Amino acid sequence: MSSLLVTGSIGIDTVESPAGKVEDALGGSSVYFAYAASFFTPVRLVGVVGDDCPEAFLAPLAENERIDLAGLEVRPGSKTFRWHGRYHEDVNERDTVAVELNVLAEVGPKIPDAFLDSEYVFLANTHPDLQMELLGQLGKPKLVVADTMDLWIRTEREKLAKLMERIDGLVLNDSEARMLTGKPNVIDAGHRIAQLVRRFVVVKKGEHGGVLFMDGKAYPLPGYPAALVVDPTGAGDTFAGAMMGCLAAGDAADAAALRRAIAYGTITASIELEDFSLKALQATTREAIDDRLAEFRGIVSF
Amino acid sequence: MSSLLVTGSIGIDTVESPAGKVEDALGGSSVYFAYAASFFTPVRLVGVVGDDCPEAFLAPLAENERIDLAGLEVRPGSKTFRWHGRYHEDVNERDTVAVELNVLAEVGPKIPDAFLDSEYVFLANTHPDLQMELLGQLGKPKLVVADTMDLWIRTEREKLAKLMERIDGLVLNDSEARMLTGKPNVIDAGHRIAQLVRRFVVVKKGEHGGVLFMDGKAYPLPGYPAALVVDPTGAGDTFAGAMMGCLAAGDAADAAALRRAIAYGTITASIELEDFSLKALQATTREAIDDRLAEFRGIVSF
Repeated sequence: MSSLLVTGSIGIDTVESPAGKVEDALGGSSVYFAYAASFFTPVRLVGVVGDDCPEAFLAPLAENERIDLAGLEVRPGSKTFRWHGRYHEDVNERDTVAVELNVLAEVGPKIPDAFLDSEYVFLANTHPDLQMELLGQLGKPKLVVADTMDLWIRTEREKLAKLMERIDGLVLNDSEARMLTGKPNVIDAGHRIAQLVRRFVVVKKGEHGGVLFMDGKAYPLPGYPAALVVDPTGAGDTFAGAMMGCLAAGDAADAAALRRAIAYGTITASIELEDFSLKALQATTREAIDDRLAEFRGIVSF
Repeated sequence: MSSLLVTGSIGIDTVESPAGKVEDALGGSSVYFAYAASFFTPVRLVGVVGDDCPEAFLAPLAENERIDLAGLEVRPGSKTFRWHGRYHEDVNERDTVAVELNVLAEVGPKIPDAFLDSEYVFLANTHPDLQMELLGQLGKPKLVVADTMDLWIRTEREKLAKLMERIDGLVLNDSEARMLTGKPNVIDAGHRIAQLVRRFVVVKKGEHGGVLFMDGKAYPLPGYPAALVVDPTGAGDTFAGAMMGCLAAGDAADAAALRRAIAYGTITASIELEDFSLKALQATTREAIDDRLAEFRGIVSF
């Protein structure tokens, strides 16, 4: 079992979906990632909140013995990142009602000395400069994977390209893969992006699953057939957390290990979206995840 | 091995895609279906063309010993169905430049006496009244599967509902499944439609593969990761043809047989879209299909 570190956002989320609404709920990429990863391996979280964030708010993280919060900075005088989203009747569509970057617009966090030897590293989506700076703080990780978003593809293409040369794997969604390459065919786009990073790309397609691109090959996996989606917020970070947790736990990232890890990511995300915020992850177990993985393997085989 | 019959259109297609253009090429649902099915089992084709259709035009069908054209009617004084489509740079998008129903707007074909004992039947997309009328001509088939389209869902909902009560399986695409049920979640929609037919539904999702709904369960399969799509015309009918051919060849339609047949459908369609009209199907072999199926099984497993 190898050490796993995640850097990313911690947020106060308000989410409206056809299934209901939650206000001021715990969210953010590193939060979903760490909680999902913790089913597989201990995980080190690096992120910043403001002093407006009540202690009880972070309880789901603090109470999870597998999440090390030594890299959680509570910054005096700053305000925590806030996001308010509204999903449509078709939950594949959403509007951002409001977003306050707050502390995310300030200087990034410092990775604690005790975390500098981390072997598996996930740089959740943020400005590529900050991702590069965080990577620079670390020693010699075995595997570095990053997420990105359309905003940086549009506005920071060169910096993103430089980051990509330094990372082993990139996780992004299908529209981002098309945008990054200008290629409308997602498979074509994925193969091209795989040439720009050290080892592999995972293109996420939401309800349609995802595709791993590695060594000139494409490995597709469908989505888990979920008839009810309460809140898709965090599904991508949950996917990445379970995937990286699975890789770190097995200390391997060859194609076979990645495919198994991606299946775990798909399944853990399919559980996460069954309720708001972290509720469904808090209510599940590793055994329930394993059971659904076995079911998934059964229904996908032919 | 059981007998397989298809009723559907035969068309003169003009297709423009980013990869080029073909004019006055052989197309139509029953044509793609029959050619794909012929890799698995003999197939009986029922359809009508006008007397404007040169004999050489139908050569790919006539030269295929596994396609029985006894149900092909050449109607004097009528004109053959014509379709002209233009695919976008993203070939998932297309415009219909022109369509002439011609003989398809006239009275439907008569199924020859020698075909009335057909055991496996596919009613390709057409007006549900005509699908019902064709079904009424037949004896007691073992398995009847139909395709439909958004037009009939919008304009002939009641007739389509009556047809659905009479058929074992329905094949439709994801946007049609959503339209038919008013449910934005495709999995939810698929489960509901499965209640309206006798046995099963296959929801096709183009590049994202498809999902089988049967006995309250959903079986997803991803698309084959095709980096180059020359012409998607006929991919859905090729999928259905290979699927039905596979079922008829094995004379079974339980969940395991359907899942294998759907995988063959996916693979055969992935070959078909590599060239215009029937070219890629004409250039391939059952061995090449089996090889790609084995490769597909390998890349999907985890």
